Amino acid sequence: MIVAHLKPPYYAVIFTTIKADNTSGYDQTALRMGSLAKKQDGFLGIESARADLGITVSYWQSLADIQKWRENIEHTEARILGKEKWYAQYQLRICKVEHEYGFKK
Amino acid sequence: MIVAHLKPPYYAVIFTTIKADNTSGYDQTALRMGSLAKKQDGFLGIESARADLGITVSYWQSLADIQKWRENIEHTEARILGKEKWYAQYQLRICKVEHEYGFKK
Repeated sequence: MIVAHLKPPYYAVIFTTIKADNTSGYDQTALRMGSLAKKQDGFLGIESARADLGITVSYWQSLADIQKWRENIEHTEARILGKEKWYAQYQLRICKVEHEYGFKK
Repeated sequence: MIVAHLKPPYYAVIFTTIKADNTSGYDQTALRMGSLAKKQDGFLGIESARADLGITVSYWQSLADIQKWRENIEHTEARILGKEKWYAQYQLRICKVEHEYGFKK
């Protein structure tokens, strides 16, 4: 679902990924990380799409909230597995959302 | 393809979309806009994925470059068609990329 009606400034984490061949356990962990992220302080929303490339954008109130989520133990364990097993490549960008507009029919 | 090795600060435009039922002409225009964007001043790269949701992130050197691309006539015409025909909903966010890191096997 599209995350709408947030008020800049806030932060976005753009996580772009290419999966490796070994994706055993990936779906389960991705679901768990999604539901865990939603419980964190400062979490504002998440959008996700995958074709060859996967793009997940999560939205946060502050850089401190992103850092705290990064330090979450279960999330840290998942990141280690991600590097070891699931991802052939990824890029993570932390951005300040300055402007935004939307449209809905 | 993942856009890697850019050096913050630079800008990201996160364009999240849900398509409407009428997508006649969409693919052709999307391809044309991709190739046209690549020729613009300040264009740094583009990443795209679609499942139910489409997420396209384009990267730019400056806010002025994004504004200039927005004012491109062919791009403006495509945006009008997008609202009229192709999109049920979209959200566009303009962000300053402050930090980034990546991983490749």
